[in-house]
Amino acid sequence: MPPNALSSLGQALLAPRAIALVGASGDARKNTARPLRFMRKHAYAGRIYPINAGRAEIMGERAYPTLADLPEPVDHVFVMIPGDQVLPVLEQCPAVGARVVTIYSDGFAEAGPQGMARQQALVARAHELGVRLLGPNSIGSANLHTGGIISVNAAFEADDLVAGDISMVSQSGSMMGSLLSRAAARGFGFASSVSVGNESDITVGEVVDALVDDANTRVILLFLETLRQSAVLAAALRRAREAGKPVVAYKLGRSEQGDALSQSHTGAMAGNDAAVDAFFRAHGVLRVHHLETLFEIVPLAARYRDARVASGSPAPRVAVITTTGGGAATVVDNLGMRGLVAAAPPPAFVAHMAGRGLRIRETPVIDLTLAATPAQYKDLLEQLLMADWCDAVLSVIGSSAQFHPDFAVNPLVQADKPDTKPMAAFLAPEAPASLALLRQHGIAAFRTPEACADALAVLFQRRPATAPDAARQPFDWPAGIPRSGALTEFEAGQVFQALGVPVAPCRLVQPDTPAHGIAYPVVAKVSSRDVPHKTDAGAVRVGIGDDAQLREAVAAMLANVRMHMPDAAIDGILVQAMEGRLLELILGYRLDPLVGPTVVLGAGGIAAELNPDFAIRLAPVGEHEAHAMIEEVRATRLVRGFRGLPRGDCDALARAIAAFSRLALVRDVTVSEAEINPLFVRADGVVAVDGLLRIEEDARK
Amino acid sequence: MPPNALSSLGQALLAPRAIALVGASGDARKNTARPLRFMRKHAYAGRIYPINAGRAEIMGERAYPTLADLPEPVDHVFVMIPGDQVLPVLEQCPAVGARVVTIYSDGFAEAGPQGMARQQALVARAHELGVRLLGPNSIGSANLHTGGIISVNAAFEADDLVAGDISMVSQSGSMMGSLLSRAAARGFGFASSVSVGNESDITVGEVVDALVDDANTRVILLFLETLRQSAVLAAALRRAREAGKPVVAYKLGRSEQGDALSQSHTGAMAGNDAAVDAFFRAHGVLRVHHLETLFEIVPLAARYRDARVASGSPAPRVAVITTTGGGAATVVDNLGMRGLVAAAPPPAFVAHMAGRGLRIRETPVIDLTLAATPAQYKDLLEQLLMADWCDAVLSVIGSSAQFHPDFAVNPLVQADKPDTKPMAAFLAPEAPASLALLRQHGIAAFRTPEACADALAVLFQRRPATAPDAARQPFDWPAGIPRSGALTEFEAGQVFQALGVPVAPCRLVQPDTPAHGIAYPVVAKVSSRDVPHKTDAGAVRVGIGDDAQLREAVAAMLANVRMHMPDAAIDGILVQAMEGRLLELILGYRLDPLVGPTVVLGAGGIAAELNPDFAIRLAPVGEHEAHAMIEEVRATRLVRGFRGLPRGDCDALARAIAAFSRLALVRDVTVSEAEINPLFVRADGVVAVDGLLRIEEDARK
Repeated sequence: MPPNALSSLGQALLAPRAIALVGASGDARKNTARPLRFMRKHAYAGRIYPINAGRAEIMGERAYPTLADLPEPVDHVFVMIPGDQVLPVLEQCPAVGARVVTIYSDGFAEAGPQGMARQQALVARAHELGVRLLGPNSIGSANLHTGGIISVNAAFEADDLVAGDISMVSQSGSMMGSLLSRAAARGFGFASSVSVGNESDITVGEVVDALVDDANTRVILLFLETLRQSAVLAAALRRAREAGKPVVAYKLGRSEQGDALSQSHTGAMAGNDAAVDAFFRAHGVLRVHHLETLFEIVPLAARYRDARVASGSPAPRVAVITTTGGGAATVVDNLGMRGLVAAAPPPAFVAHMAGRGLRIRETPVIDLTLAATPAQYKDLLEQLLMADWCDAVLSVIGSSAQFHPDFAVNPLVQADKPDTKPMAAFLAPEAPASLALLRQHGIAAFRTPEACADALAVLFQRRPATAPDAARQPFDWPAGIPRSGALTEFEAGQVFQALGVPVAPCRLVQPDTPAHGIAYPVVAKVSSRDVPHKTDAGAVRVGIGDDAQLREAVAAMLANVRMHMPDAAIDGILVQAMEGRLLELILGYRLDPLVGPTVVLGAGGIAAELNPDFAIRLAPVGEHEAHAMIEEVRATRLVRGFRGLPRGDCDALARAIAAFSRLALVRDVTVSEAEINPLFVRADGVVAVDGLLRIEEDARK
Repeated sequence: MPPNALSSLGQALLAPRAIALVGASGDARKNTARPLRFMRKHAYAGRIYPINAGRAEIMGERAYPTLADLPEPVDHVFVMIPGDQVLPVLEQCPAVGARVVTIYSDGFAEAGPQGMARQQALVARAHELGVRLLGPNSIGSANLHTGGIISVNAAFEADDLVAGDISMVSQSGSMMGSLLSRAAARGFGFASSVSVGNESDITVGEVVDALVDDANTRVILLFLETLRQSAVLAAALRRAREAGKPVVAYKLGRSEQGDALSQSHTGAMAGNDAAVDAFFRAHGVLRVHHLETLFEIVPLAARYRDARVASGSPAPRVAVITTTGGGAATVVDNLGMRGLVAAAPPPAFVAHMAGRGLRIRETPVIDLTLAATPAQYKDLLEQLLMADWCDAVLSVIGSSAQFHPDFAVNPLVQADKPDTKPMAAFLAPEAPASLALLRQHGIAAFRTPEACADALAVLFQRRPATAPDAARQPFDWPAGIPRSGALTEFEAGQVFQALGVPVAPCRLVQPDTPAHGIAYPVVAKVSSRDVPHKTDAGAVRVGIGDDAQLREAVAAMLANVRMHMPDAAIDGILVQAMEGRLLELILGYRLDPLVGPTVVLGAGGIAAELNPDFAIRLAPVGEHEAHAMIEEVRATRLVRGFRGLPRGDCDALARAIAAFSRLALVRDVTVSEAEINPLFVRADGVVAVDGLLRIEEDARK
C-alpha cells in the first residue's frame, strides 16, 4: 500500500515548511536557544523565524517583534514564553497561517486549578480560531529526516542521532530524550518524535494518526503515563494496523492499585491498568514490560507482524541455539516465566541435521560450542526457520560476540530468513560492536536476557477476537426499568434477563402478602435501592423451607433494616429459588474512565479477594472470546475437568458473558457499572443469583 | 577484623606461586595457548611451566615433557589434554607438590554414564593422593591482583580488566566471562574469578570459603545453575557473614516446575527453586532477579550490609528525587511491583527544606527540574539521608547525566553519606560517562529501571530468624513407630503428637469390633500403608452418626479397598473425631535434595492447587519465624481479622509449625517427607486431621 499523503494537521505537525520560534533566545546557555541551534545542526531546509521583541537578530537570523511582522506564512509556531503571555500569541496565529501551535510553556493544567482554567481558556480560543495545540508543557517535536527539530530537548545536542524509520510519541518529555539517546547509541534511527505534554488538544491518538500517513515512519513507539481520548487512539491504531505499522507501548502504572472509583468487587479486581492492557491487546499494541524492549523489539515488530503459535501448541515454542549454555539458560529461564517454551528438536529434525553433517542433541537448548563451523551454524538457522516444530528461533551468542563480531553475527546475517518465523539474538558478553552490526542488518539483538524474553513474549501475545456483528447489535433498555441511579437487584435482574443472561427465578412480593409461587426452599432478600450491601444489613435469609419460615424471616429482616437504615425506601421482598452450583464466579461490567466499556470475569467467593484471578476485555465480546476469558480465569479449571470433578457448562457461561457484555450497546442509557455476584456455574447452564447495576448520572447518552 | 591468611587450599587455588600448564600449546589460535599469553599480559610474577612432550619451548618458555621433569614444586596444575589422559597426570601431582589440579578437559560427568564413571575414578584417586580437583569441565580461575590467569576464558583477552575487590564463582564457564566483560566495561574491578565446572571435588562452597580469607575480596558473586554440597556452602556463607563479606547470587531455575521427586501436595507446591530461595535467605545471600543486578548491586551490598526497614513500616520506603519525572516513574513502578514504596516527604520535612531555602512538594517523587542548584541537590540528599521517614534514597538523573556528567554526579559524590541508609542512582538517558564516574566513587548506579528496583528490593529482603536453641534439641523417635518406609496415618499422627502438634482424637480399631470411645459424629478411614490416597480409594467416610452407621461404613469401605487394591494390607479402621475449623492449611516437611530439611505452610483445599500460596523455610524454625510464615500465606488473612471474619489461633498455629519442623532433628531416623493435610485452624487451637510420613530408605542416619 503506498503511503498516504500527510493530512493538513500532519503536515503542519510533522513536516512544517516554515516555523516561528516565539521567545527564541540568542544566549546559547538557555533552553530557548536550542531549537534554532538544533535545526541548523540537523540542516533543516525550511524557513525559521525567531520572534523576540527585544532583539533584531538571533544567531545571525533576523528576529521579528511579533508573528504579525513575519514576511510569509508559517505552518508551525513554537511558543517558549511564560504561560500568561501565550494567549496573545495564539490570537495572531490564524493570520500567519499557523495550523499547529506547540506550547513549551508551563503553568497550565499541571500547575493546579488556576493553570487548568488558563489551559481551558487557551483550548477554547484555539478551537474558535481553528488552530490546533500541542502541549502545553510539551518539550516539542522533531523530524530527523527534515531536520525540523521544534524542541528544547537536550537529546538533540547529540551527534549520533540518525534519520530512520522509528517514530516515538511520549507523554514524558524528558523520557523521550532518554529513550532517543539509548536507541541512538544502539544505532536505531528515528523519523519523528513528538512530546504531547498536557494533551490539552492534540492527544497521542491524533499524533499516531498523523504518523500512519508519514512515509518515513515504519514503527510507532509510545511512552505513556495514562490514556486520554482512547477512542481517538483506537481509531488511529486501527489505521496503523491496516497500514501495517506496528505500535509498541511502554506504559507506567503496572503496580498501581486499582482505582477507587468503584466499590464493587469488579472494580477492585480490575484496576485501570488491567483495562488499559485489555485496550492495548484489543488494538494489537505490543505492550512491553522492560524499558529498553521498547526499541529493542523494533526489528521483530517491524518484520514479524503476524508471528503466531502454530496450531496445537499451548505455548509459543522457541528453538534456542547457542555457544554458551549458561547464557542461553538466562533467557530460557525468563521465557519460562513468561509462558514460552524452549522446545527440544524432535528426533526427525536431529536426524535431518545429521544428514546435513551436523550432530545436535534432543535438548531444549541446542549447544554448538566448538562443534560447528559458521556455515553449519547458518545452515542450522535456516533449517530451524523452516521447521514446523518451533515458532521462533533464538540465537544466544557467547564470547565470539565480544572478540570476533563479524564471525559471530555472520551466520545470522547470511541465513535465509523468511518473514514468517521470528529470529532474535541475545549477546551474553559486553558486545557493542556485534549489537551494532546486527542492528545494521535489521536483526533484533538484545542486551539483557530479560528484555529478550520480554520481546518474544510480547510478540506472541494473543490478540482477542473482536465481537461478531451479531453481538454488536444495539440493545433497547427494557420498559419499566429506571433510566438513572442504582437499580434494585430485582430491576438489575430484569435487565440481565433481557440481555439473555439466565437469572434465578424470583418474585417481588409485599411484606404483608408474601405469596410468591417459587418452590421451596427459597432465599428472601429485602429489595431496596438504598441497601446496597444486603448481607451486612441483615437483609438476606437463605434456606427458607415454608411459608411460616418466610413470614418470620421477612419480619426479622425488616426489623434489621429499620434499625440499621431507618430511611431506606423498601420496594418489597425478593423471593428467589435456592440454586445449586459447581462454582461461583463474578461477572462484572464497568465503564472504565480511560478505555470505556469493559467486561470482567473473575473467581467468586472471599478467597478471590486474596488471589486476584480475573480476565478482562473491552466490551462487547463474542462467545469465542468469552471462552478465552473462561480459560484465563484459573478458578474455572475446577469445572473444566480438573481431577475428576464434574464439568460445568462452559458454553452457557460463554453465552452469558457475551450477552452481559452487551451492556456496552444499550441505547439511550449509559451503564456505568454492573455486576452479577455470584454467577453460579452448573452442569447444565449458569444462573445469576445476585446483581447490581448503576447508570451514569452525568453522561447520559 | 583483619583478613585471615589463605588456607593451604585457598593459597593453591587463588594465589599459586608456581603453575604447570599441561597441554599448553604454542599455536596462538588454540585455546590451550591462552593461559600463558594471559598471564604474561597480566604480568603474573610467579613461575609458569608449560608441559608438552612434543615441544622444547612454548612462546619462549622452556617446556617440560612431564610434571616429573619440573625443576621445582608447583602449587597448581592446569590440565588441558583429552579427558582419557588426565589420570596419569594426576598420579604425578603429589610428587611435584601440587595441591590443586584444575581440569579444563571435558568428557566427564557432563558426557553421560561412561564419563561419570571416569570422573568418579578420578575423584577417588585424587582423594587417595591428597590432591584437590577443580572441574572437570572448568574454564579455570583467575586472580587479577597477581595476574595468575589459570584459564582459557576468552574474557581475559580484554584490555579493560582491572584488579578490584569483587570475586566471582560460576557454575557456567562461559557466563563467567560474559559477566566479567559486562562488569569490566562498567569499571568494576575483580579480585578472583573461579569456574567450578562439574564440581567433582571442590564445590562452590569451598571456593566461597577460600574467598572469605582472601584479603583482596570484599564482595562475592555467584552465578549458579544448581546447588551442590549445600552444607559446605552454608558453612562458608556463615563465615562470609561473620567476615562482613556480602554474597550476591544469580541462580537459574526460577521458572522450573517443581521437581517430580515427591507426589505429595507439598512437593508440588514447593519446587526445588523455592527451597533454594529459602536457603539463600536463611544465609543472607542476596539473590537478584536480573542478570546485571549481580554486579550493579555491589556498591550497595558492600556498603549497606545492614540496610533495613525502620520499625513500624510494612514496606521499605524509598525517597525518590529526580529531574525527570517520567524516568523516576519507571523505577517507582518497578519498586511497587517488588513491594517497595516511594514515600512522599511529610509536611515537617517539606517545611524543614523550605527553611533551608528549597521548596519541595509532598509527592512520592520529589521533582527538582530546573528548580534546584547543585548545592541544593546535595543538601537535599544529605537531609534525606538523615531523615527518619525513609529507608533509602534514590536519585534518578535525566539529560544532565548524558551531557554534563560531572554536573550530574557531583551532588551524589559530594554529599555526606552515612553507612546506615542506602543511596542509589538510576540514569535515564544513555550516559556511560556518568555511570563510570559514579562507579569510581563507589556509588551504585543502574542502567535499567528494572535492575535498579531489583537491587533495592533485594537489599531490603528480610532475613529469617534462626530457630532458638530450644527449638534445636534433638527429637527421639517414638517407641513402637516403624523406622523405615511409609507410615500409616495413625502412626504418622503419633509422631506428630510426640513432636507437640495437636492431632484429632482417634482410635485404631479392628473392622469386626469397631468399639472406639470417640464421641459421635466421627470420621472412619481404612488404615493401610498401601493406600496412600484414601479418598480416591473410597476408604474414607465422614459424618458417621452412630454405631450402626459405622458398621455399615466399615463394610462399604473395606469392599471398596478390596475391589480397587486387593493386595493392600489393612491394619484396621481409624475412627476419628469430626473437627470444626475456620481454615484448612497444609503443613509439609521435605528433605530437599539440594538444601536439606525444609518446612512448608500452604493454603489447603483444591483451590490452593490453582493458586500457589505457600511459605517455605529451612527446618527447624522457631515460633517467631513460624509467625512470619503465617503472614506470608495469603489464605491465612481469612483468620487474621479479614472483613470481620472470626480470628483463628495463630499462636497455636505457630507452635504447631515450629514443633512439626523439628522433624529435621529426629535422631537415628531420616524423615524424607511428611505432611499434615489438612491442618485445621480453629478459634482455640489447631488440629491435624490427616497426615503422612515417609522415611528415607537409602540414607538412614
